[in-house]
Amino acid sequence: MLANEVKEKLIAIVTKANFEDSKTERLVYSYDATPNFQSMPDAVVSPRNKAEVAEILKICNQHQVPIVPRGSGTNLCAGTCPTEGGIVLLFKQMNRILEIDEENLTVTVQPGVITLDMIHAVEARGLFYPPDPSSMKISTIGGNINENSGGLRGLKYGVTRDYVIALEVVMPNGDVIRTGGKLAKDVAGYDLTRLFVGSEGTLGVITEATLKLIPMPETKKTMLALYQDLNAAAKSVSAIIANKIIPATLEFLDQPTLKVVEEFAQIGLPTDVQAVLLIEQDGASEVVERDLTSMAEICKQEQAVSIQIAASEVEAEALRTARRAALSAIARLKPTTILEDATVPRSEIAKMVQAINEIAEKYQLEICTFGHAGDGNLHPTCATDARNHEEMERVEQAFAEIFEKAIDLGGTITGEHGVGAMKAPYLEWKLKAEGIAAMKAIKLAFDPHNIMNPGKVFAKDSKKRVVITR
Amino acid sequence: MLANEVKEKLIAIVTKANFEDSKTERLVYSYDATPNFQSMPDAVVSPRNKAEVAEILKICNQHQVPIVPRGSGTNLCAGTCPTEGGIVLLFKQMNRILEIDEENLTVTVQPGVITLDMIHAVEARGLFYPPDPSSMKISTIGGNINENSGGLRGLKYGVTRDYVIALEVVMPNGDVIRTGGKLAKDVAGYDLTRLFVGSEGTLGVITEATLKLIPMPETKKTMLALYQDLNAAAKSVSAIIANKIIPATLEFLDQPTLKVVEEFAQIGLPTDVQAVLLIEQDGASEVVERDLTSMAEICKQEQAVSIQIAASEVEAEALRTARRAALSAIARLKPTTILEDATVPRSEIAKMVQAINEIAEKYQLEICTFGHAGDGNLHPTCATDARNHEEMERVEQAFAEIFEKAIDLGGTITGEHGVGAMKAPYLEWKLKAEGIAAMKAIKLAFDPHNIMNPGKVFAKDSKKRVVITR
Repeated sequence: MLANEVKEKLIAIVTKANFEDSKTERLVYSYDATPNFQSMPDAVVSPRNKAEVAEILKICNQHQVPIVPRGSGTNLCAGTCPTEGGIVLLFKQMNRILEIDEENLTVTVQPGVITLDMIHAVEARGLFYPPDPSSMKISTIGGNINENSGGLRGLKYGVTRDYVIALEVVMPNGDVIRTGGKLAKDVAGYDLTRLFVGSEGTLGVITEATLKLIPMPETKKTMLALYQDLNAAAKSVSAIIANKIIPATLEFLDQPTLKVVEEFAQIGLPTDVQAVLLIEQDGASEVVERDLTSMAEICKQEQAVSIQIAASEVEAEALRTARRAALSAIARLKPTTILEDATVPRSEIAKMVQAINEIAEKYQLEICTFGHAGDGNLHPTCATDARNHEEMERVEQAFAEIFEKAIDLGGTITGEHGVGAMKAPYLEWKLKAEGIAAMKAIKLAFDPHNIMNPGKVFAKDSKKRVVITR
Repeated sequence: MLANEVKEKLIAIVTKANFEDSKTERLVYSYDATPNFQSMPDAVVSPRNKAEVAEILKICNQHQVPIVPRGSGTNLCAGTCPTEGGIVLLFKQMNRILEIDEENLTVTVQPGVITLDMIHAVEARGLFYPPDPSSMKISTIGGNINENSGGLRGLKYGVTRDYVIALEVVMPNGDVIRTGGKLAKDVAGYDLTRLFVGSEGTLGVITEATLKLIPMPETKKTMLALYQDLNAAAKSVSAIIANKIIPATLEFLDQPTLKVVEEFAQIGLPTDVQAVLLIEQDGASEVVERDLTSMAEICKQEQAVSIQIAASEVEAEALRTARRAALSAIARLKPTTILEDATVPRSEIAKMVQAINEIAEKYQLEICTFGHAGDGNLHPTCATDARNHEEMERVEQAFAEIFEKAIDLGGTITGEHGVGAMKAPYLEWKLKAEGIAAMKAIKLAFDPHNIMNPGKVFAKDSKKRVVITR
């Protein structure tokens, strides 16, 4: 519960209309897209500008009230679950595209802009914002920046971090700072811009961002390569890169995923093969044609049983949409879906997929695996039921082994979903105590009262991942 | 002077052969490529591995002895001048290329590797490391990372930061941490990798780095566009980008620079025009041809008086070499060369060049301007004489005005050279007190005794830039 004094001060800042603490409203913001995490906030506050954000932070800092900045809550790491109560900060009133600068190839936005709305707006000018998280229809840019969202085009184009060039941030003490600029080069001090990208709302509140754009690729083509052998699919990925081709998209779906997605989307995906690669190239038409031909040959050499080139953009879009729908499709199977994003060096994909299958068998679980093969970012996904405690215990153990294996292979516990509350207990496996200490030092320096999204990134004590409530 | 106890401990770590404190040796490392900064270190130490680095840092931390990590000292911001004495740390024994991984497109190096040696090694495998600072023949990768070096290909390919994906760093307390991995995606905690890139040796000592590579572009073409009007050249830059072409290189040289470079290099550069754009495109041959044709047309429309396409790679390389030689060429004019790297949004280049010319006239100085027009990164360069105190005072004032103007135009005080000791007094103009406070908080958290390259990035009190200390 907020102290009355705090509540009154917050209402004085944002007006009554933008302050909610009814049980219904609090319930709505007690969880995000992450299964099995729920915790009630004390209030939900919607500031209208950076000055209001600064005032809110000052008050919360003074009274040590937790603040959880939240976009659309599509994250999968319990990054916006208010595990320690406090205030959920919404940006529904700070959702404008402020400028599209065609000369400097930038777009400047407020954090509450929906990702796809911004993508459409810049594409209307012939410009391209490559990061395309699967949630982009509902996710916000602010959320994408805080989570450093990835997507299907990471291999060729990078992730959100690679496109954020300037930020306005309100620090926990209420200071407003501006980092970077509309600049391709800027080395004036430490790179705070990229420090805030992916910091999961634990260091400050982003109130404005300038993103880099690139010219829209001239054309794009899509193909499927079908395999009866997982290893052959993985080898094709390596062979394509070894042939010095960097496709725009290089996605992997295993048979269990194919079956579920086809049942859901019904677009004629093959379900009688062990694995599919969804491959796209974009760019100048001559290059796209040439790369597609080369890649088809490489895949055949690596024992693809069939190559299908999308006949039209409609067909290609259907394939992409089907891939993006993988999570939704699997989520229909059982009440609870645990989707992970263990990531390994590209060369280790075959080993990782095999390990996942062995672990699934060991713990008698159904794990579908799909993901961004080109960048080693896999999404082993388990359809389960949180009410079945015995099974959840096995799920828990299986994913712990998957993380361990990913790290063994030179990988990481999270490629694009973030640590949040969910993976905090595993972060030390990747970073060791010394790495955690360095990150905690920054957190403490910026946010000594730990008001910014407390309980995220850094674990408290438990190794349990799937159960926390308040 | 080092205390005897410290000296003995250091020798015990690195052996006598790798510890130097003769006056001659100390003199050699008392300055870097930055004019007018000189300060004697107490010793020069060359560790052989990370364990030795860790031991050295522990001792220096305990005894509060400054440490200045140094590559080849080619930086232009007095970043490696030991302004507060202490130890200069050399990496001449940690200079191996550890691995080129063709499957994951990475190269792993020790900090002392010469940039161009590494570039040659990866190019021999058909791979491409785009950052190409003008000093790359002698600079080290460790220095490039610490300074986040840029180069001629920043517009299309980004800078050093965009290619560093994993680091091994010894923290000031002797902890060894590893950040990132051979991973296109990794969001396990804060982005320490990019925090260390460009931190100018003030946060820790980099002992190993893994860099991302990309496939070598198939072909490359080079052309010159000549102008009798500075504005027309600047407009051409904007028009090329507005036409959705991102050339690999888009360099600007004004007439004073052209004259000096031609006198030095004698390759037939035009000296009777006001400005030249050196334009390159790389990639698939069809695309390169098409882009070159389009860009030539655009430049003509924008009043280029002549377009010259390099007939051969030899001719193209001569042009690039001439551009890279600009600093050396100008340095022949007078005893002291002050080269700056004020950077503005691309759209503001014309205004910035005009402002530089007006400021040069106001202070009666000869300022040559060249630089990376495509990314707004200009190098106004003044040939002067440090012994002429009255003129140096004017140089000081002129560059202060140039920085002020760059910031007014939405730019920064340094695009690729770093802050160091030289631009520390101006950093607050760009970042404001609040931005500096955030950066200082990180510095203090990582390095509470301020042993890592003290006196760099953060100003002490003086606004003086060109003054010899200690």
